[in-house]
Amino acid sequence: VEKIGFLGLGIMGRGMAMTLAKAGYPLTVWNRTPEKAKEFAALGVEVADSPEQAAEGNDVVIMMLADPTAVREVAYGPNGVLEGLRDGAVLIDCSTVDPATSQNLASAAGQKGARFLDSPVAGSRKAAEDGQLILMVGGDENTLGKVRAVLETLSKTIIHAGGTGMGTYLKLCFNLIVGHMSAALAEALVAGAKAGLDPAVILEAVNSSVLANKFYEWKGNCILDRDFTTNFSVRLMHKDLNLMMSAAYGLNIPLPVTASVKELFGIAKSCCDPEADFCSVVRALETVTGVEVKRV
Amino acid sequence: VEKIGFLGLGIMGRGMAMTLAKAGYPLTVWNRTPEKAKEFAALGVEVADSPEQAAEGNDVVIMMLADPTAVREVAYGPNGVLEGLRDGAVLIDCSTVDPATSQNLASAAGQKGARFLDSPVAGSRKAAEDGQLILMVGGDENTLGKVRAVLETLSKTIIHAGGTGMGTYLKLCFNLIVGHMSAALAEALVAGAKAGLDPAVILEAVNSSVLANKFYEWKGNCILDRDFTTNFSVRLMHKDLNLMMSAAYGLNIPLPVTASVKELFGIAKSCCDPEADFCSVVRALETVTGVEVKRV
Amino acid sequence: VEKIGFLGLGIMGRGMAMTLAKAGYPLTVWNRTPEKAKEFAALGVEVADSPEQAAEGNDVVIMMLADPTAVREVAYGPNGVLEGLRDGAVLIDCSTVDPATSQNLASAAGQKGARFLDSPVAGSRKAAEDGQLILMVGGDENTLGKVRAVLETLSKTIIHAGGTGMGTYLKLCFNLIVGHMSAALAEALVAGAKAGLDPAVILEAVNSSVLANKFYEWKGNCILDRDFTTNFSVRLMHKDLNLMMSAAYGLNIPLPVTASVKELFGIAKSCCDPEADFCSVVRALETVTGVEVKRV
Amino acid sequence: VEKIGFLGLGIMGRGMAMTLAKAGYPLTVWNRTPEKAKEFAALGVEVADSPEQAAEGNDVVIMMLADPTAVREVAYGPNGVLEGLRDGAVLIDCSTVDPATSQNLASAAGQKGARFLDSPVAGSRKAAEDGQLILMVGGDENTLGKVRAVLETLSKTIIHAGGTGMGTYLKLCFNLIVGHMSAALAEALVAGAKAGLDPAVILEAVNSSVLANKFYEWKGNCILDRDFTTNFSVRLMHKDLNLMMSAAYGLNIPLPVTASVKELFGIAKSCCDPEADFCSVVRALETVTGVEVKRV
Repeated sequence: VEKIGFLGLGIMGRGMAMTLAKAGYPLTVWNRTPEKAKEFAALGVEVADSPEQAAEGNDVVIMMLADPTAVREVAYGPNGVLEGLRDGAVLIDCSTVDPATSQNLASAAGQKGARFLDSPVAGSRKAAEDGQLILMVGGDENTLGKVRAVLETLSKTIIHAGGTGMGTYLKLCFNLIVGHMSAALAEALVAGAKAGLDPAVILEAVNSSVLANKFYEWKGNCILDRDFTTNFSVRLMHKDLNLMMSAAYGLNIPLPVTASVKELFGIAKSCCDPEADFCSVVRALETVTGVEVKRV
Repeated sequence: VEKIGFLGLGIMGRGMAMTLAKAGYPLTVWNRTPEKAKEFAALGVEVADSPEQAAEGNDVVIMMLADPTAVREVAYGPNGVLEGLRDGAVLIDCSTVDPATSQNLASAAGQKGARFLDSPVAGSRKAAEDGQLILMVGGDENTLGKVRAVLETLSKTIIHAGGTGMGTYLKLCFNLIVGHMSAALAEALVAGAKAGLDPAVILEAVNSSVLANKFYEWKGNCILDRDFTTNFSVRLMHKDLNLMMSAAYGLNIPLPVTASVKELFGIAKSCCDPEADFCSVVRALETVTGVEVKRV
Repeated sequence: VEKIGFLGLGIMGRGMAMTLAKAGYPLTVWNRTPEKAKEFAALGVEVADSPEQAAEGNDVVIMMLADPTAVREVAYGPNGVLEGLRDGAVLIDCSTVDPATSQNLASAAGQKGARFLDSPVAGSRKAAEDGQLILMVGGDENTLGKVRAVLETLSKTIIHAGGTGMGTYLKLCFNLIVGHMSAALAEALVAGAKAGLDPAVILEAVNSSVLANKFYEWKGNCILDRDFTTNFSVRLMHKDLNLMMSAAYGLNIPLPVTASVKELFGIAKSCCDPEADFCSVVRALETVTGVEVKRV
Repeated sequence: VEKIGFLGLGIMGRGMAMTLAKAGYPLTVWNRTPEKAKEFAALGVEVADSPEQAAEGNDVVIMMLADPTAVREVAYGPNGVLEGLRDGAVLIDCSTVDPATSQNLASAAGQKGARFLDSPVAGSRKAAEDGQLILMVGGDENTLGKVRAVLETLSKTIIHAGGTGMGTYLKLCFNLIVGHMSAALAEALVAGAKAGLDPAVILEAVNSSVLANKFYEWKGNCILDRDFTTNFSVRLMHKDLNLMMSAAYGLNIPLPVTASVKELFGIAKSCCDPEADFCSVVRALETVTGVEVKRV
């Protein structure tokens, strides 16, 4: 059975690492702020002092970090993952980064005799805890085959998006859609509420139709209940939309609507709580209009 | 059983009128271009020479027209519906118009001793033919009760949105969401295709997740198959987004993302086929980028 | 010398009517709220009780009203201008309206044997007082020739934009540019201030360059001095941008940037003072970011 | 008199280097593609084989390159500027880059005992040739004082924007405004032309008003004459708007209108000639609408 190093114990990373621990994998964890590692230590999981140490001697090394800057620090920094990565290991980056960062990690891992997969995830905090994530994997089929059992522990669905970086591109496209759908919900609910509609009726119409989806049912009700407990923050959604816009710049593809969606999240990040759940983007419109969307 | 007058035999109106005819309602139809009424005549349905005549003597008069201008002409014009509407009748406008038009129709109907419901519909051409639409009804409960059997013949779901005009507001909010979701799909598919992703993989990711919905499955595959057979045209979606923006102006609600979505549909209407299905909004981005999204 | 009826004594109309009075034209004024007419009465100007009376017997009738709704009420309403308009008179609408409203006024005036010019204005409150406006005139050359002396009293520049409605289109294009330039200033100043630039340095750079213009010098300094005294309100700029977007819908021209500019004014109208000068659009960004642009 | 090394002989760099040569400064030039250096060699100017050699032994080293990537390669690459920079020299980056790149250059120069100014420029190709640029300088006053004579040779105006990076921020704010004003002109001209206005009348209205500026006179006439000879390309304006959006992300400032402007340039870059002058952004709208703006 593979020995695993896991770096990053945030909302998602914590659930993923816990899933791996419960599945019985020999596990070493690392987190920038050590407090978050304590509950793992209490379970007998090894806690590393540095990214290097978390990587050392392990067959599979998984990173689940906030953004490209964090990934670069943890990977390339002093006592970083790349210093610990052993020949033949597989480095898996589950963070959402830009495609260039994925490409560079693949090269750097290759120079250490290791392999690389970009494998950003979709799914909630609970899906992370339950091993029910969706993984969007970029890299070669052999490498994916080698770690499939580990990835299956974390996920209900593994999508092989293509070569290195394609998992990252797929995730950015995916979050583009999540961002648009959130903005749509926000604008429909605020305009509808101002018009005098019961916002629940808007959700009812959506959920009676071909548009019906669990995301709108879930986040729509969070908004109506004013429950902005964070699964994925406004700040991180804004970061991912920013990564998508940068990627699109590189691809020479104009994305006029995504550009607007990103700025709406930017407004929410500026004027409201950046750490609240991203469905609180509705508060950007509420703040500027004075309308509050709530259950009637 | 209610005698029904039905005005407007476009893509949706034709299916709705046919559903009523098949359900055995005594029916009179009218269409601006008489050719479309011929198949009804062939079935023994009465064909009126004017909106007035289509309304005359009927218990329920239903309009299903393209836009507010068409509705106003048919309702208020010479030999218009209002001249034929009998005391006690119920006028139902299933067209998607602006809330003020709905309000005005309610007043005008009231002056004739008639009642009014705004009842725009959601659903495909096939849903119209199968009596499986969603109706979003504005007006008082009594009036709705009086015609519920007729409306149930047309629909699988009836949502009572509130008083006069609320059906219209709800429909505009609904189509706002449809518009955003279409734009999201278009931007994700074009950017993803340019990045080298198989567009089917993007659909797969969406449909594996909480975002999964029939709309994306349906329209996503239409795009990949380059099947832009019209259920609802780019032109009409642009019209509805324009109505939403006008309504929002009246409500004093800024809708920055919807504004961008509307312009994207405006580009598609200008540069591509305005009568193609609205999922062909993807062609706006394809035209300016030279990327074509298709099945690999 | 022409006898003139003047309707609408708002910020601009007041200055214009005063200019005509001082130039010695026999003048009748009307305003919806009679208080504003008092200073004219004090000068011996006749004050009409109704739009009809303001039009009656006059050679030239000028309207300077807030929006299309106001124009339609004053023109077509009971005791409206059209009831008073005499055969051979010239009706001039200096309000900024939509092109259809201009077209309809021309027809209605024609039916009374009168002629029509749409002649929206550009210029500040002071330019109105000083007879230094810019007039953008739609209508035939003969009619323009007939009233040129009156219009020259009001203006430093008369631009004959074309036939009926072309003055209105020109004004909408003009205000589109004003709106964009205001949004540009707002976004540059807020971003620059957050970056640590002295905002005065941004104005200095602009005014050293080919971009240099009096508008930026004027409004830029108003912003730095936090002087939002109204020349033209956020509400009216938002109205004009809304008219432009509606006109563009009719013209089948997508205007993706103007759509965003309009929503930014919509945010300012919602979250800040709608009656403040339109350069206070900067407050929309200040409100959501917490940055204040001010002289260092 | 200072010995100067100059790197980058594109549209702007060529004119600037030529101005310095004509002013009699001992000059060494370098360009990535050596052909562009030939005319300098013909004038007796020294041509370096590498950035390092262009920097070596010079008192002032000026870079005028296309984008941050080019700057980083030329500065930090093998045989790069930093290897040649002597103790006590002043490195001036006239390229438009991101603020972080400016900061990093300042640190790197400092480590070599050299000083640094970011000094992006505003002005046309002709202004570069005539030594009439506007320089926006970031860095300390002493360093600026030391090279003021050199900078004055290049410019008509030197604006000291603040410390390191502030020149870059100022330039990004400046080009934000240029981008908006270009988009405004494009949208007004295309909408106006479709409405039937002579586009020259739109320019006339602008230039009669407080908006009047040389930029609109110049670029407006270029558009009407269909003269898209490049002073500054669509591609580079899109790059600068992208830098501004990235900087704004870092500053936590939403820029909803600039985001739209950037995408309009992105459309122009994709669908039309990316190397044409940036005023050809009008072609993005022309392409999607089929309207051509031209002199009547």
